[in-house]
Amino acid sequence: MLENILKQVQDGSMSVEDASKRLAPFENLGFAKVDHHRKKRQGFPEIVYGENKTAEQIIGIATSLQSQNNEVLVTRVTAEKAGSIQSVCPDYVYDNISRLLYWKSSDQSSSKREGYIAVIAAGTSDISVAEEAAVTAEVLGSKVHRIYDVGVAGIHRLLHHAEEIQQATVSVVIAGMEGALASVVGGLVSHPVIAVPTSVGYGASFNGLSALLTMLNSCASGISVVNIDNGFGGGYNATLIHQLIHKGEGLA
Amino acid sequence: MLENILKQVQDGSMSVEDASKRLAPFENLGFAKVDHHRKKRQGFPEIVYGENKTAEQIIGIATSLQSQNNEVLVTRVTAEKAGSIQSVCPDYVYDNISRLLYWKSSDQSSSKREGYIAVIAAGTSDISVAEEAAVTAEVLGSKVHRIYDVGVAGIHRLLHHAEEIQQATVSVVIAGMEGALASVVGGLVSHPVIAVPTSVGYGASFNGLSALLTMLNSCASGISVVNIDNGFGGGYNATLIHQLIHKGEGLA
Amino acid sequence: MLENILKQVQDGSMSVEDASKRLAPFENLGFAKVDHHRKKRQGFPEIVYGENKTAEQIIGIATSLQSQNNEVLVTRVTAEKAGSIQSVCPDYVYDNISRLLYWKSSDQSSSKREGYIAVIAAGTSDISVAEEAAVTAEVLGSKVHRIYDVGVAGIHRLLHHAEEIQQATVSVVIAGMEGALASVVGGLVSHPVIAVPTSVGYGASFNGLSALLTMLNSCASGISVVNIDNGFGGGYNATLIHQLIHKGEGLA
Amino acid sequence: MLENILKQVQDGSMSVEDASKRLAPFENLGFAKVDHHRKKRQGFPEIVYGENKTAEQIIGIATSLQSQNNEVLVTRVTAEKAGSIQSVCPDYVYDNISRLLYWKSSDQSSSKREGYIAVIAAGTSDISVAEEAAVTAEVLGSKVHRIYDVGVAGIHRLLHHAEEIQQATVSVVIAGMEGALASVVGGLVSHPVIAVPTSVGYGASFNGLSALLTMLNSCASGISVVNIDNGFGGGYNATLIHQLIHKGEGLA
Amino acid sequence: MLENILKQVQDGSMSVEDASKRLAPFENLGFAKVDHHRKKRQGFPEIVYGENKTAEQIIGIATSLQSQNNEVLVTRVTAEKAGSIQSVCPDYVYDNISRLLYWKSSDQSSSKREGYIAVIAAGTSDISVAEEAAVTAEVLGSKVHRIYDVGVAGIHRLLHHAEEIQQATVSVVIAGMEGALASVVGGLVSHPVIAVPTSVGYGASFNGLSALLTMLNSCASGISVVNIDNGFGGGYNATLIHQLIHKGEGLA
Amino acid sequence: MLENILKQVQDGSMSVEDASKRLAPFENLGFAKVDHHRKKRQGFPEIVYGENKTAEQIIGIATSLQSQNNEVLVTRVTAEKAGSIQSVCPDYVYDNISRLLYWKSSDQSSSKREGYIAVIAAGTSDISVAEEAAVTAEVLGSKVHRIYDVGVAGIHRLLHHAEEIQQATVSVVIAGMEGALASVVGGLVSHPVIAVPTSVGYGASFNGLSALLTMLNSCASGISVVNIDNGFGGGYNATLIHQLIHKGEGLA
Amino acid sequence: MLENILKQVQDGSMSVEDASKRLAPFENLGFAKVDHHRKKRQGFPEIVYGENKTAEQIIGIATSLQSQNNEVLVTRVTAEKAGSIQSVCPDYVYDNISRLLYWKSSDQSSSKREGYIAVIAAGTSDISVAEEAAVTAEVLGSKVHRIYDVGVAGIHRLLHHAEEIQQATVSVVIAGMEGALASVVGGLVSHPVIAVPTSVGYGASFNGLSALLTMLNSCASGISVVNIDNGFGGGYNATLIHQLIHKGEGLA
Amino acid sequence: MLENILKQVQDGSMSVEDASKRLAPFENLGFAKVDHHRKKRQGFPEIVYGENKTAEQIIGIATSLQSQNNEVLVTRVTAEKAGSIQSVCPDYVYDNISRLLYWKSSDQSSSKREGYIAVIAAGTSDISVAEEAAVTAEVLGSKVHRIYDVGVAGIHRLLHHAEEIQQATVSVVIAGMEGALASVVGGLVSHPVIAVPTSVGYGASFNGLSALLTMLNSCASGISVVNIDNGFGGGYNATLIHQLIHKGEGLA
Repeated sequence: MLENILKQVQDGSMSVEDASKRLAPFENLGFAKVDHHRKKRQGFPEIVYGENKTAEQIIGIATSLQSQNNEVLVTRVTAEKAGSIQSVCPDYVYDNISRLLYWKSSDQSSSKREGYIAVIAAGTSDISVAEEAAVTAEVLGSKVHRIYDVGVAGIHRLLHHAEEIQQATVSVVIAGMEGALASVVGGLVSHPVIAVPTSVGYGASFNGLSALLTMLNSCASGISVVNIDNGFGGGYNATLIHQLIHKGEGLA
Repeated sequence: MLENILKQVQDGSMSVEDASKRLAPFENLGFAKVDHHRKKRQGFPEIVYGENKTAEQIIGIATSLQSQNNEVLVTRVTAEKAGSIQSVCPDYVYDNISRLLYWKSSDQSSSKREGYIAVIAAGTSDISVAEEAAVTAEVLGSKVHRIYDVGVAGIHRLLHHAEEIQQATVSVVIAGMEGALASVVGGLVSHPVIAVPTSVGYGASFNGLSALLTMLNSCASGISVVNIDNGFGGGYNATLIHQLIHKGEGLA
Repeated sequence: MLENILKQVQDGSMSVEDASKRLAPFENLGFAKVDHHRKKRQGFPEIVYGENKTAEQIIGIATSLQSQNNEVLVTRVTAEKAGSIQSVCPDYVYDNISRLLYWKSSDQSSSKREGYIAVIAAGTSDISVAEEAAVTAEVLGSKVHRIYDVGVAGIHRLLHHAEEIQQATVSVVIAGMEGALASVVGGLVSHPVIAVPTSVGYGASFNGLSALLTMLNSCASGISVVNIDNGFGGGYNATLIHQLIHKGEGLA
Repeated sequence: MLENILKQVQDGSMSVEDASKRLAPFENLGFAKVDHHRKKRQGFPEIVYGENKTAEQIIGIATSLQSQNNEVLVTRVTAEKAGSIQSVCPDYVYDNISRLLYWKSSDQSSSKREGYIAVIAAGTSDISVAEEAAVTAEVLGSKVHRIYDVGVAGIHRLLHHAEEIQQATVSVVIAGMEGALASVVGGLVSHPVIAVPTSVGYGASFNGLSALLTMLNSCASGISVVNIDNGFGGGYNATLIHQLIHKGEGLA
Repeated sequence: MLENILKQVQDGSMSVEDASKRLAPFENLGFAKVDHHRKKRQGFPEIVYGENKTAEQIIGIATSLQSQNNEVLVTRVTAEKAGSIQSVCPDYVYDNISRLLYWKSSDQSSSKREGYIAVIAAGTSDISVAEEAAVTAEVLGSKVHRIYDVGVAGIHRLLHHAEEIQQATVSVVIAGMEGALASVVGGLVSHPVIAVPTSVGYGASFNGLSALLTMLNSCASGISVVNIDNGFGGGYNATLIHQLIHKGEGLA
Repeated sequence: MLENILKQVQDGSMSVEDASKRLAPFENLGFAKVDHHRKKRQGFPEIVYGENKTAEQIIGIATSLQSQNNEVLVTRVTAEKAGSIQSVCPDYVYDNISRLLYWKSSDQSSSKREGYIAVIAAGTSDISVAEEAAVTAEVLGSKVHRIYDVGVAGIHRLLHHAEEIQQATVSVVIAGMEGALASVVGGLVSHPVIAVPTSVGYGASFNGLSALLTMLNSCASGISVVNIDNGFGGGYNATLIHQLIHKGEGLA
Repeated sequence: MLENILKQVQDGSMSVEDASKRLAPFENLGFAKVDHHRKKRQGFPEIVYGENKTAEQIIGIATSLQSQNNEVLVTRVTAEKAGSIQSVCPDYVYDNISRLLYWKSSDQSSSKREGYIAVIAAGTSDISVAEEAAVTAEVLGSKVHRIYDVGVAGIHRLLHHAEEIQQATVSVVIAGMEGALASVVGGLVSHPVIAVPTSVGYGASFNGLSALLTMLNSCASGISVVNIDNGFGGGYNATLIHQLIHKGEGLA
Repeated sequence: MLENILKQVQDGSMSVEDASKRLAPFENLGFAKVDHHRKKRQGFPEIVYGENKTAEQIIGIATSLQSQNNEVLVTRVTAEKAGSIQSVCPDYVYDNISRLLYWKSSDQSSSKREGYIAVIAAGTSDISVAEEAAVTAEVLGSKVHRIYDVGVAGIHRLLHHAEEIQQATVSVVIAGMEGALASVVGGLVSHPVIAVPTSVGYGASFNGLSALLTMLNSCASGISVVNIDNGFGGGYNATLIHQLIHKGEGLA
């Protein structure tokens, strides 16, 4: 890309000012400093946390990322805010269960990665967080198997899917209430498990604290945990791990 | 017993003062008011919580209970304290794993209750609490099956015992760390489950808070919970439930 | 039932696909895996937690349960959601105090169980949780005595009902604020007590934490605890215990 | 006293420096500023919190108080520290249950106050805190009735003392575990109740938090609360209230 | 009153059923058991906690209390609910700052108690809780001095009122944020201080927890604490203490 | 191995009883059920949590694992307990910084895995937890680079090692106090980061809660978290991820 | 000013009553006691915390302050409330990002202080709190440099501004989520850092608790912390420190 | 210093290896990376947190710092550990109240800074933390006034020192229990206040949480807070602020 930009400067099709902006490690929008080197440094472009941002701020950041040919992924977007953004950026896709808004350039060919990520949810009420994990992983190029409503109160439902889970490269387990599903899955598999506690529950679940503590204290060994309701974090971490297989291939 | 006492008063073998003490609903030892009617009112005599009491105080209370022909059960007794008490009350039994000290009169014939209580512990480290539950239930006249080290990290160990657990009248599930075992057992059985969280664990287990919250928030329906490390409470509640079968028989 | 289904397959009145669905241990609705063996495994069919489910999801799950001739019991249903469901399932009953929605087939004859469950509430504000317990127990086939507004600030009101409480098979005690009622009831009876803390109170009640801790730390022995505001759990556990009398009968 | 000191200055038997020290509102010992006007301002002299002070520091402060003809009351003194202090101040009294160390001058005639304070403790394990309350009240001139081991698990023990409690001017209720005793007493009496939670208990009592929350959330109206294990605070507040009767007399 | 009722029964002007209801220690309204002996037992009639009750429930309870010639005091009543009640009970008074609703019979002559209660509030935002304390005390017959906006950030404002505060019989101190005012007042006076933490503040005030802990840990000795925002409790406890002066008179 | 055992049965060199024990999915030692299929199911044999186990229990479990030709890894072993075990099992290695005790059979050839795990510790005080992570990973066959004392208060120390960290396959970041190191590392790398909070700190670090919350709330995306002081979990999860590269190779 | 007022009294242009009000240390508005000596005592006039005050109360307090020629600064004012106030006080300025409302008299010449305060915010979502800090400092006479969106997930953005930050007199660091920015800035500079945690985040950020604990436990040494979301406190403390340079000048 | 080193290299009196070590921004001791540029970057050399370090580690780090002509200040050193270190470094000074160990080179002339820091402690039990603050400030070159035992329970003791406190450049306020002293001091002065909560107290002080929350929520404006018991942090921050006066001079 660098060469392209320099050529455009040479032939006068890009001003020096624009080129310098494009090549800077971040673009300063005043309210935000968009990180243009994130993809180079971290493998994926900056993800935009949409919760406390206005539609205008999101459009500004997204446009800056897109200008660098980065994918755009915005989390926690309400349907209403998504509508405002899509009226300006009509090629953005919005998923109203996961509340994710995203865009991929046409030259980002679909994934060739082998294997898949198992996204496993304990109950029907956990599905929106599970979808945040699943869609995140898909947008970032991984294949996903969804296994939902397999909470431990009827463990035969989970064991029914044991093989499908065991053959995944990495699992994301989403559970609220007491969050016991993570430990049971952790005991069945030989791959890493990312546990996502949800705020589903009432009374002494204390908005997800119960599930969070359960997962941190799991007696199964291969489990690590992300923040409450952080489906995105679950999907992102799983993808980071999933793509390692290809690094291995590269090395081989 | 009342008749006995009155006869002794009549024939002068018991003073009025002694008789009145024996018939009072409680005996006032100054530092304690021993509840003599507990057994009549509640089915079992007063249980002595030994943790903050001196050997002398325990002997005083125990002697008062024994004088009413009550069983004696003292919880949380250190080996050292037990020794001091046994030097005065040589027929008391001490169990150094459960830290229970107890005495039963010879006319308390062993239990004829049908069925049994399943006492199920997640890990080796939970055994002392599990034994507090099991021995309590046994002293109070129930039969117990012990199923230990069947935590969910290797769920085949638990499923191996599924039938034995399902045929119990009531289960007591003891678990520390994330306490997930209670939910899995709760999903397998059709009888009540008493869950006992333990303080086993480290870091964010916060001395049993993690297991406690897990059990209170269980997605399985038939679970109720007692205090952290309260093996006694688990065994006592299970026995209260277990003996209901005989009430049923009585009614039939 | 199995025989029935197989005959229908034989005579062509049921397709193999439908039969296999009916005989599976659960039906996969995508957003939910309805547990058809729960009643066989646990004595009661799967109870539907209605809080985070849409009317459509509840109808889907309920229809699946009904198709197996199971009772249907849905908790935490708002009046509005209940209306939507009843417009599709007009024979469902909705109780607007307990917020329970339920359906029983005509061949589920009313209970013949002896004895009753005492549902005891501390204050007028605890009644909705108490009704969740009481109606749950009734739908699952138990007889219930309601004893309301007998908090410990006027203990003569409770003692007035002492005999009625003592003759129950099991008690459910519902209390918010400081939750002391559970301990006092626990000291009066010889049967198991299920304690349900409520979030009634203000300031340092911390949404039920105060009553929860009180009940977990009760100095009375036969008390076990369910989640804050979990009236359903209270009624369900009490019913599990209550029906044991009949097991006893069966064994005798 | 002022006059005395001035006369001694006049006749040369006291230096100006010493007199100015005696008349200052506080004496500066470097590590402490002993409050000489506390008794005038607050009715009682400064009470010394002994927990983190050395024997030397306590002797220094006590001597300064005594020099102003104040009573001396030191809380939380270990037996060992008390021994060191008594070797210097042989007329100090040490009570090894309440861990209080005190001294009263001979011209402080014993109390003539009418009525008494009821000090009520739930269990044998709460007695050391109860004695801190009782002895504090006695040292400060009140009469005390002790009513111990009357926890709510056997409520007849408490009701047995109802009249004695109701006739007190003020009650101090000491309880650990779930602390329910305060609410029951609060519902029986027409005088103020000072509730003292104790750290007695285990597991989810969280070192007295459970009893503290119970007492703060009491459904009975006339209860106010002091810090966990703060027997001194209970006795001190009760005495402040108890002595009001005499103010009333004074006014009449 | 007993005599009156019996006469009415004798002359046929009251049915036996009505008389028995009037003489019972409580009236059972189904949703509530109104405590008719509270005033005899506790000095003041039952206070109605209005927060979770409907207008209809409050009217029912209030009418029952009134029928026994008791004052009526209802706390935490919204303006809207008060309107509904007043449309039925037009002689009830509503105070929209303290959110108290009350009624006093004409033969309850105004207080003759000497002395007064100081109600001291730290900031303008604490006034609604302070008024709950002040009006409660006034309805129950005490005289009140209000001293508002004297928080410790400008301590000269408090010291300006020192004498007025010191001459009170008892103080109620209301403060949010860090709640330091209670300690400073506690150090200035020789009478009991009831501290009421409020939920005023933000961030790490955690809805009043900060002020609550401050007051429980006060280094000043004569302070006891009620629940967060419990202005009623502050006023009620202060009145219980205030009226002791007259007991003293009675005894003299 | 199966074949071996069957041959030994055939030729009489192993009894049927012994063979059945060896082939069972777990060996029941009474106090423990040793999981013999863990390695097959999960890739690594059961790890023994040594904290609450006696030397005798550990020897029993270890011997059972060894009999199946499994590596043995015991965590949280005190030097004293290690000594007792080594006197029976002299070929066990004990590392007194990480407090790990382990044994590897001679036919477990050393790792050929490419790449390495970066174990990064914030301060000198975090080194024992860091070594638990590092040695765990090494015993399980990974290569480790240690980068210690690079806390964010002197960020040039961390940046000095940026390249070494970026070239790792996975990082384990160990930090106490405010735990900020995880976020900074997370922002520098394109591989997964396992964060291990430690209990190092004082005051408001609340035994590691501060670092735990920091890591769960990290604004950097690729971070997942294990329990406080759980160095073992950090090393184990990192190894699970690290070995995926070879799965990739296998697939290629 | 004193002289002015006395002259006006002398020549009859001001009544004695008005003069005495003007000269009093505070004005008593009933609901508030406005502190007129705050500026003299503390360097700045009383700041009005607007959150729980009505527009009328704010106007009353502001007018009283203005009458003493004080600046007026009101925090936490909603746009709607600001509108009501400005309709009465049209020369007041309202800033809708920081939600500050303020007024400065024309004779308060703009600041001549050398140096500047660096206000550094981690993310776009923290900007409203950051602006509360920045505008507060500006209204109180300091120069401010704003450096926004420089969170540690892309540390090159922060390092890009290192010199600008290092040359400030004092920094205010605003961050939510894990709040790690404070530690990194603290390690880069030789001047005091005031850290302001924000409630930005979700799940286990517990409304700012996570960032608060991070900042209190910082491993960098020169950091002190104010309340969650307390941008005002950050700006005020920074200004107190910033103006010390001029005290130094005065002394030199 | 650079020049010196280069000369020594030139004339062969220092090896290239040694010189490169001396000039590196930090020295890598393996267990620690000693920050040699801290003084240049931050104004003061790296302070050593001694709590979890061995005497050997401290000697290693201290020697490295000294070799760069830095002062050495080690916090939280036990008397025993200090003895071990002093036997190797006999010119180090140990203060057994503040538990600080330090060394200053002879060419560090004593401070010429004008003004002083007021170190104000609430109670005798807070003195060790106060001394940590005071001695830290003195070692770093500031003059300190100590004002101890001036808690708010006797506010005249504090007001007695009002002028001395008001004339300080900056105050450090140390208080445990309810920590109210910080607010009162904050309301009296026009300079910045650094508040240090201590863990002194019992029961609901929760090891300093109470005082911490008090100080964070102070209604006085110029207060910022450091960690519980962090006397060092209080002294260090105060010194950073105190030295600004001279920066001002430098600019003037």
